[in-house]
Amino acid sequence: MATNNGSVSTPELLDLTIDNITPNTILINDQSPDARLRYLMARLVTHLHDFARETRLSTDEWMAAINFLVATGQICSDVRNEFILLSDILGLSLLVDSINHPKPAGSTEGSVLGPFHTHDAPTLANGASMTSDPEGEPMLALCRVVDPSGKPVAGVKIDIWETDSSGHYDVQHADRDEPSERCVMISDEDGRFWFHGIKPVPYPIPHDGPVGKLLVRLGRHCWRPSHIHFMFEKEGWDHLITALYLRNDPYETSDAVFGVKKSLVIDLGKTDAATSAKYGVAEGTLLLEQEFVLVTKDETERLRDENAVKALKALGLHMKLVDHLPVPDLD
Amino acid sequence: MATNNGSVSTPELLDLTIDNITPNTILINDQSPDARLRYLMARLVTHLHDFARETRLSTDEWMAAINFLVATGQICSDVRNEFILLSDILGLSLLVDSINHPKPAGSTEGSVLGPFHTHDAPTLANGASMTSDPEGEPMLALCRVVDPSGKPVAGVKIDIWETDSSGHYDVQHADRDEPSERCVMISDEDGRFWFHGIKPVPYPIPHDGPVGKLLVRLGRHCWRPSHIHFMFEKEGWDHLITALYLRNDPYETSDAVFGVKKSLVIDLGKTDAATSAKYGVAEGTLLLEQEFVLVTKDETERLRDENAVKALKALGLHMKLVDHLPVPDLD
Repeated sequence: MATNNGSVSTPELLDLTIDNITPNTILINDQSPDARLRYLMARLVTHLHDFARETRLSTDEWMAAINFLVATGQICSDVRNEFILLSDILGLSLLVDSINHPKPAGSTEGSVLGPFHTHDAPTLANGASMTSDPEGEPMLALCRVVDPSGKPVAGVKIDIWETDSSGHYDVQHADRDEPSERCVMISDEDGRFWFHGIKPVPYPIPHDGPVGKLLVRLGRHCWRPSHIHFMFEKEGWDHLITALYLRNDPYETSDAVFGVKKSLVIDLGKTDAATSAKYGVAEGTLLLEQEFVLVTKDETERLRDENAVKALKALGLHMKLVDHLPVPDLD
Repeated sequence: MATNNGSVSTPELLDLTIDNITPNTILINDQSPDARLRYLMARLVTHLHDFARETRLSTDEWMAAINFLVATGQICSDVRNEFILLSDILGLSLLVDSINHPKPAGSTEGSVLGPFHTHDAPTLANGASMTSDPEGEPMLALCRVVDPSGKPVAGVKIDIWETDSSGHYDVQHADRDEPSERCVMISDEDGRFWFHGIKPVPYPIPHDGPVGKLLVRLGRHCWRPSHIHFMFEKEGWDHLITALYLRNDPYETSDAVFGVKKSLVIDLGKTDAATSAKYGVAEGTLLLEQEFVLVTKDETERLRDENAVKALKALGLHMKLVDHLPVPDLD
């Protein structure tokens, strides 16, 4: 198989069969000048074709898959991404996060992004309220961002989002005119950020579309345990997408999108008199206290490269890393 | 691994990692009561996850793939199916057709359906014209449908479609108000059908969407060689989707969708005086003469099952066929 542009000799694409379609498709795609894209396409075509050969995929099943993909694309909108949801329920999102954000012991683990993060959340000052839901059970959140040695990390941009008390994100309400139950905060000099939210509740992932119909056919429920999302960004630090889950939720061990890690399951406390006075809440208000441990980008890349080399060797693949991503090593 | 509903014990979905996400996703999907769906999902999840592990798929690449799929779905319409086009350029359509429609020696081979078949073509009487393009080079087509022993097959419904002389199907014109360059015919008692069309021309597959952009990145052209599509349907006979390709087309050996078979490459002739008088065309008009050989549904199923059993055995898979489709054999 030729593997770089210029030297590739394109095959005669005639009389392609079950047995020769795969190498020929790979060869024609090898005209790309991009070594990484060539590798991705070669593996994609191999897996796609092997899937069809192993299952002897019927024409009706192929057409059902095409229709499923079209419907999945058509239901997407500015505020709904059904393909991310599909990736979530197939375990791919969790896997990609695990590959790309390995966590040294002691750092905060990642979780799935999900399809409900938006880019229009308001940046709020510490101490602000990110909820407008009077039905929600008030919850004070006192958080801190630190490095693995416990030193505060200031100036981190933190995206925070959760559902309202009915289990819906703002974007799921047809009459949404502005963001709600979501905000952006910046950690202060001591790494702290704090806000008023509401107690998370369990909720079903959107199940009125193709992904929901698939879950029904698979005999799976569509529920996620109560959680609140956090995303941390700062130059030089590894991007952390995570969430905190409430202990003893009915769906704690059966999350439809595989996001729960034991280290992210928390207990809510209640505010004492001093804390209540300090933050202006009624005594006994639900209290979320959490320290998030970020890892530097360098440390994460080092760990990711190390894991990649180890895994590729275990798979028997002769690869090299270019820009931290594997391509075939032809030397 | 439990493999049928009722006896499946669902795993605790906690602390999922690169190494345990795949078996756990398969196990949770095994709650489906449908054995074939369980097998399809298990292979899908395995290939999808293996792809991510072998490529150490980056978050950016995952997001690019999500965006590609969303865009592919969003450009679909009643008259455009970009996912079929994607399946075509990845060689999957050819593969699925080859698996499902094995051809005994002497029968007419299949080719790709493509994304341009519609269900609104008018049924025309033999001898009618299926073109309204005055710029096209007139072509008389005299065809016959027979069985492998040469006996005529009457009453076959034949869908026929081609582009106009500009290389566009009718549905690619924004102002399309009715079907053109497409029709349905019925073979007569002698298995014959004949019509007036135009000489096929090479044309680019739609390249203004995500699939066209992918081809550019792969260094591939987007052209299909000159051809005319035929689809044959009759109760008791294997559904035949095929096309005839003109010899010496510049894209004869580099079809963007892998459809060309040597047995489907034809030479056009010219009408002699007698034929011209009989069919009411000018002498020397382009002439397509073709015999199509259909196979019975029973014979095709027998051959498909035989091929499936052989292929699955060669893959080392312990399977049985249920309704002609493989599922794991647990006995």
